Amino acid sequence: MTETVISSASKEIIIGFEHPFCLIGERINPTGRKLLAAEMAEGDYSRVESDAMAQVEAGANVLDVNAGIPLADEPRILAECIQLIQGLTDTPLSIDSSIVEALESGLSVYQGKALVNSVTGEEERLEVVLPLIAKHGAAVVAISNDETGISEDPDVRFEVAKKIVERAADYGIKPCDVVVDPLVMPVGALNDAGAQLMKLIRRLRDELKVNTTCGASNFSFGLPNRHGLNAAFLSMAIGAGLTSAIMNPLREQEMAAVKGADIVMGKDPNCAKWIKTFREPAAPGAESAGAGAGRREGRRRRRA
Amino acid sequence: MTETVISSASKEIIIGFEHPFCLIGERINPTGRKLLAAEMAEGDYSRVESDAMAQVEAGANVLDVNAGIPLADEPRILAECIQLIQGLTDTPLSIDSSIVEALESGLSVYQGKALVNSVTGEEERLEVVLPLIAKHGAAVVAISNDETGISEDPDVRFEVAKKIVERAADYGIKPCDVVVDPLVMPVGALNDAGAQLMKLIRRLRDELKVNTTCGASNFSFGLPNRHGLNAAFLSMAIGAGLTSAIMNPLREQEMAAVKGADIVMGKDPNCAKWIKTFREPAAPGAESAGAGAGRREGRRRRRA
Repeated sequence: MTETVISSASKEIIIGFEHPFCLIGERINPTGRKLLAAEMAEGDYSRVESDAMAQVEAGANVLDVNAGIPLADEPRILAECIQLIQGLTDTPLSIDSSIVEALESGLSVYQGKALVNSVTGEEERLEVVLPLIAKHGAAVVAISNDETGISEDPDVRFEVAKKIVERAADYGIKPCDVVVDPLVMPVGALNDAGAQLMKLIRRLRDELKVNTTCGASNFSFGLPNRHGLNAAFLSMAIGAGLTSAIMNPLREQEMAAVKGADIVMGKDPNCAKWIKTFREPAAPGAESAGAGAGRREGRRRRRA
Repeated sequence: MTETVISSASKEIIIGFEHPFCLIGERINPTGRKLLAAEMAEGDYSRVESDAMAQVEAGANVLDVNAGIPLADEPRILAECIQLIQGLTDTPLSIDSSIVEALESGLSVYQGKALVNSVTGEEERLEVVLPLIAKHGAAVVAISNDETGISEDPDVRFEVAKKIVERAADYGIKPCDVVVDPLVMPVGALNDAGAQLMKLIRRLRDELKVNTTCGASNFSFGLPNRHGLNAAFLSMAIGAGLTSAIMNPLREQEMAAVKGADIVMGKDPNCAKWIKTFREPAAPGAESAGAGAGRREGRRRRRA
């Protein structure tokens, strides 16, 4: 039974086939968020703070932290954000950067066992990222592309994932500490993206026996009703074996998809988490114990 | 490749693993609808008419027609409703009753090849319903319970389904004309209802090779945010092999779940149906070509 343990100083999260789905909050990322990028570059982390707390309240199990701002001092900003967030919440973090110095800087201040996002199958990435993972005893997201790019053939992507797992082992990193991202392609451009991905997720679970993650929202790129399509995709991917995803926990339809999938898989005893998340507010003015997404859902349903 | 063909006088619908999911509209059913029941008993079928058209517009592929009103003349009312609906739409129908005389009366006026809902594995039901199916060349929903009730053991339910398929063959009814309902239990009461049902649906597809249907909304009985949970359940069940469901096509979240599942399974070329259903209205006042659910979704998303 493959279990990927991620931790902060005082809290452990397990990603695994027998565990509830692991929701990695994607919001702390300046890519495509101009205001956040400008604030972070100026050392104003107030939005990082509020995004962190909102995601935790909404049910994120891990928070992804990315500080990729052009021309900014990414290693310093990433480390500062990690220290700030770890002072606010015990939710474990995913340290997200394409710059090795930033990963190194983030790992050096991180309290606990981080998830590092990410390494690809490219030789030069493997050679610099994997020693860092080994040195810090972290876990790593392995993206299944290499020097030749992203293959449309799921069997090729499987082989790239397998290669990364094997190379990680050479550095003493256990397969359970490699979480494979099979790469979600936009189905609007590539019609069999869904069917092929489901097959690939099943192979990764059954043959390579690794945990998996993905950036789910990429699937619906360019199509209308993206939240509805993301929801169907997420539920089905979890049914096929997906054990975590980098996603927005503030989106109620996607949240219902992953929490509902836990129920269908028998991973929410007595539906307790579902009921806590989605129960109707008790009375006007009363404070609900449910998550942010749940409260909004309650209001929306009454209006419909 | 198992294909269940259902038809009206001029339109065919195929239920099958290689075909888009078949959505059977559940609305024309007086059970739990007091006003509709009273109207139908008095021969006022205006709501039957509007429910039929609304469901067709929203994307129902088949319409279930039930006239089960206590103390009313069900055989006559069912036949009248079938004739009325067949005069309005070419959408094939599912003739739904627990009274054999009503099934007989409905079948005798039906134009095309109907789906009959339903027969169970109980001996006395098999002996009266199956000859009727054979005589009219219809297809039949086979509910996997028998004299001993509904087993919580999915293997027992599989055996009941297998028995019905075999008994149907004795009457000359082909396995492709038996659509098995594996019976959806409320997960709030039975925690492993989802996991067991997914296994059962896979066995029905892989071993018995039959098409399947279910009353999906039963899964969420008693829980909050039923539409969100129904959506997750439906997407995952389709991923496991479910080929049709009796459901409400006017519910946008469930509709996104089944239309999204078609995309994930590679059954919506160029995402054309998805785009048609969910695209944003062109401009205020302009008429959208999308289905009812889609237009509501468009408005809702803009408001959110």
